[in-house]
Amino acid sequence: MSIVLLTGASGFLGRATLAPLAAAGFEVHAVARRPIVASAGVTCHAADLFDDRAVTAMIDRISPTHLLHFAWYAEPGKYWTSRYNLDWLAASTRLLAIFHARGGRRAVMAGTCAEYDWNHAICKEGMTPLAPATLYGTCKNAMQHVLAAYSRQHGLSSAWGRVFFPFGPHEQTVRLVPSVINAVLRGEPARCSSGEQVRDFIHVQDAADAFVALLCSDITGPVNIASGKAVAVKDVALTIGRMLGRPDLIALGALPSPKGEPPVLEADTGRLAGEVGWRPAMTLEQGLAATANWWRAAMTYERQA
Amino acid sequence: MSIVLLTGASGFLGRATLAPLAAAGFEVHAVARRPIVASAGVTCHAADLFDDRAVTAMIDRISPTHLLHFAWYAEPGKYWTSRYNLDWLAASTRLLAIFHARGGRRAVMAGTCAEYDWNHAICKEGMTPLAPATLYGTCKNAMQHVLAAYSRQHGLSSAWGRVFFPFGPHEQTVRLVPSVINAVLRGEPARCSSGEQVRDFIHVQDAADAFVALLCSDITGPVNIASGKAVAVKDVALTIGRMLGRPDLIALGALPSPKGEPPVLEADTGRLAGEVGWRPAMTLEQGLAATANWWRAAMTYERQA
Repeated sequence: MSIVLLTGASGFLGRATLAPLAAAGFEVHAVARRPIVASAGVTCHAADLFDDRAVTAMIDRISPTHLLHFAWYAEPGKYWTSRYNLDWLAASTRLLAIFHARGGRRAVMAGTCAEYDWNHAICKEGMTPLAPATLYGTCKNAMQHVLAAYSRQHGLSSAWGRVFFPFGPHEQTVRLVPSVINAVLRGEPARCSSGEQVRDFIHVQDAADAFVALLCSDITGPVNIASGKAVAVKDVALTIGRMLGRPDLIALGALPSPKGEPPVLEADTGRLAGEVGWRPAMTLEQGLAATANWWRAAMTYERQA
Repeated sequence: MSIVLLTGASGFLGRATLAPLAAAGFEVHAVARRPIVASAGVTCHAADLFDDRAVTAMIDRISPTHLLHFAWYAEPGKYWTSRYNLDWLAASTRLLAIFHARGGRRAVMAGTCAEYDWNHAICKEGMTPLAPATLYGTCKNAMQHVLAAYSRQHGLSSAWGRVFFPFGPHEQTVRLVPSVINAVLRGEPARCSSGEQVRDFIHVQDAADAFVALLCSDITGPVNIASGKAVAVKDVALTIGRMLGRPDLIALGALPSPKGEPPVLEADTGRLAGEVGWRPAMTLEQGLAATANWWRAAMTYERQA
């Protein structure tokens, strides 16, 4: 039986990964900072990932064959430059060493499109230069190189999923999709930048499913986790306004355009589709509709509570 | 007053750095695994660098303004692939964060020529691609990127000294220079490969002095620590044989040539000479003569003891 240790299980991506991991037949052990909504087949753990002894004790108890490592510092607006990136690089490095020393066989970790040189619009694994502009991208990129070199020299199977722009249930409300949806649902203007930036969005459930497919495969190295179809941010906002019947509330240009951001970031998904054999289940429209429904339900629940 | 925390102080490079640090006017605090020969102005500490709490307590006591970080796993033959490289990357990352959070102002760390792509004979900072072939080189290169990105985003002054091929007193005896010197001093054949590989050697005292000059400067980023003049390994061996009066004992070709090693590795020392303003005090011949004298004295001492 395959036993997976999932870190960051209460996070945006982690919580969406619990069900597909169980559905794929894993015995699931989830580490989380906060309580999680766990279904059958999931065991929760509260180990502090910065504490070597606690991690070792937990891994000794679980004996995981697989590791899916999502935990990292992700506070919106702060994570790009935070010194916590150093702590998470150190903790991830130690987790890798302990997992493999105790018999772990395959590790998949979450990377980021911020590892790429953003002067290249299309990001392709092994082709586009890696030149992160931030401490976050640098520490993720460092971990990626360490994971690959360690795996090659010590016979561990591993892969690295570079996540682009996930959206969906439980996303932090200051971020683009939930802030637009919530403003429109409240009948208020959704203040956006001009939204000319083109980004590769993916529904978080699709991203989670992609990670599980990657974990179940024997593909190694970096793999982009994305839809492969980038759209302008303004079109995301306008789609939300239209599907909620209030296109008039989308206030494009009400906020200044973010500085230093590249015009286009799109993933080449050739590895994900061709090698892992996985494609998104949802179109952007379907994903946005599902997300709007989720926020509407959450809002109703809040009003009732 | 400038207060420096030196790690790896009982190591090959660290022990040679104690005197020049004190001579440069630093209050020197040395962390070491083994007891060290410390002169006036040096305070020794025995903190476990893998223990965050011990590191924090030590740094709280010392309040270092400067950090010179040499400590890493360096067991000959094993360090290239060892999983301890992960532990040292994690420990170095945490040390950096703690040092700066407690008011540290400038950090210099030891890198390696193994960070470079060895398909390029001449290694120049910022020009030669970084493509380490080993886990050791990968972890050092990861740390270098993390140090640079952290420093840029958090206002720390830092530099990274890429060490080429140091030799001198206290080098581990299985390595080239001491093994040839000791064989010849015992009157036995010094079994070498054909020695066609060309490498950039530097006396460890020069390397230590270069690090102190780098620490005292405000130069940032990677700086090669090397002589800038590469020589064939066979010429190093023949020079030793000649200066000890027994060229006949140099058995070139008695050992197989190491596989997968590049023919030439030479540092461009433009940054070290032009920006840091430092040049080696010893020629290769002077360095080898001093090293042979040291081993002869050590041997005499051993016989007397």
